[in-house]
Amino acid sequence: MSTMSDDVTTLAEIKARVLGFAQERDWEQFHAPKNLSMALAAEAGELMEHFLWTTSEASRDAVKEPVKRAKIEEELSDVVIYAIEFANMTGIDLAAAIERKMAANAAKYPVEKAKGRADKYTEL
Amino acid sequence: MSTMSDDVTTLAEIKARVLGFAQERDWEQFHAPKNLSMALAAEAGELMEHFLWTTSEASRDAVKEPVKRAKIEEELSDVVIYAIEFANMTGIDLAAAIERKMAANAAKYPVEKAKGRADKYTEL
Amino acid sequence: MSTMSDDVTTLAEIKARVLGFAQERDWEQFHAPKNLSMALAAEAGELMEHFLWTTSEASRDAVKEPVKRAKIEEELSDVVIYAIEFANMTGIDLAAAIERKMAANAAKYPVEKAKGRADKYTEL
Amino acid sequence: MSTMSDDVTTLAEIKARVLGFAQERDWEQFHAPKNLSMALAAEAGELMEHFLWTTSEASRDAVKEPVKRAKIEEELSDVVIYAIEFANMTGIDLAAAIERKMAANAAKYPVEKAKGRADKYTEL
Repeated sequence: MSTMSDDVTTLAEIKARVLGFAQERDWEQFHAPKNLSMALAAEAGELMEHFLWTTSEASRDAVKEPVKRAKIEEELSDVVIYAIEFANMTGIDLAAAIERKMAANAAKYPVEKAKGRADKYTEL
Repeated sequence: MSTMSDDVTTLAEIKARVLGFAQERDWEQFHAPKNLSMALAAEAGELMEHFLWTTSEASRDAVKEPVKRAKIEEELSDVVIYAIEFANMTGIDLAAAIERKMAANAAKYPVEKAKGRADKYTEL
Repeated sequence: MSTMSDDVTTLAEIKARVLGFAQERDWEQFHAPKNLSMALAAEAGELMEHFLWTTSEASRDAVKEPVKRAKIEEELSDVVIYAIEFANMTGIDLAAAIERKMAANAAKYPVEKAKGRADKYTEL
Repeated sequence: MSTMSDDVTTLAEIKARVLGFAQERDWEQFHAPKNLSMALAAEAGELMEHFLWTTSEASRDAVKEPVKRAKIEEELSDVVIYAIEFANMTGIDLAAAIERKMAANAAKYPVEKAKGRADKYTEL
């Protein structure tokens, strides 16, 4: 039975699930920020592996094929689970941090300058 | 004014913010799954850079130093922002996907076998 | 004065340079395989950052622009320097390992099956 | 029969092997710099996976266990093979680029300042 969904689930609820999973297994001892940052990056690598040789445009359709899609959902979940456990272990309020970062990004990439351009802010 | 926090913010709210940011800048054209997976992995690399030469144990304290902590919060946010935009562009319900993945993980790592052990499930 | 070039430089010569650099700075204490694998992956992330929003085809030309090319050469060098230091610290003969891996790859991807196809060997 | 080893093999010889492998399979069409940078980073992630939950110190011994060592040699080879193919596809003289980068690193990390310290050059 699925009880979590983006519409109703807060980050705090996911954090609690992820923390509980680690605590039940006595895994907090392994979850140093250094280790979690590595695990996160390794999972990000696995997500990328689905798109190595396809073009960017073709990757939009590739994610629709059911078997591939199920695997991609798993890799993406692994990435976010480690990001959330990193937030757990370091006491970071992730939603607040994201809001601050997006405000900083908005200042670096003002709409009138950045619209339709993929350039780095230093080159706008 | 900060309005988002883990206690009250749902993933759908963060998704909407991240999507709005991209749409205002006409950036969806760049946000193919392939490209987002790369950006996510590159940001994961930047998060790791804070912990390259420290021991795992020392990394628990390293995240408490205020200047470093502010940067780490930014890198972690970047990772999650790209993960969320990936979910936006592919129509993935992230909370539901995480719940499914955690159920699969629980089956691979039963508490009685995995407790206190960092081994891969194939070696338990 | 440049003295190294692909045509004449052996891996052993590069290994010795990289090792000497670390030894002069008393850095071998930091160069545990775990740490070097992270540094390598972080540098790989920096190399990717040059290609996030470009198409694969356009990336073939992007590497020709002189300023960008100089940076890309630096990122690629960083990756290989860490790979070589990893080989130094673990006593791996890199050329021999590459030869073995290429023989394994040739068995997984026989020319007649793999020609012109980007599929994983499990799907050929 | 093994014919390559670090003592005698030049980078040009490895480049030729790697290029020949791709050409026989008509894979150059897939080997855009963007794609190769992703493949390289994904393989770097696989190398890291061997060291996620071990301490840095323990990783020095972990690489000596024969079964694990064989896998680590394969992952390291994959990383370097993609780096070399990147150099092939972009016409980079890797040994010369490494020599230039090491000269730049020596300027950023002078022995008298950097000795025994893992700090970034901006903090020396």
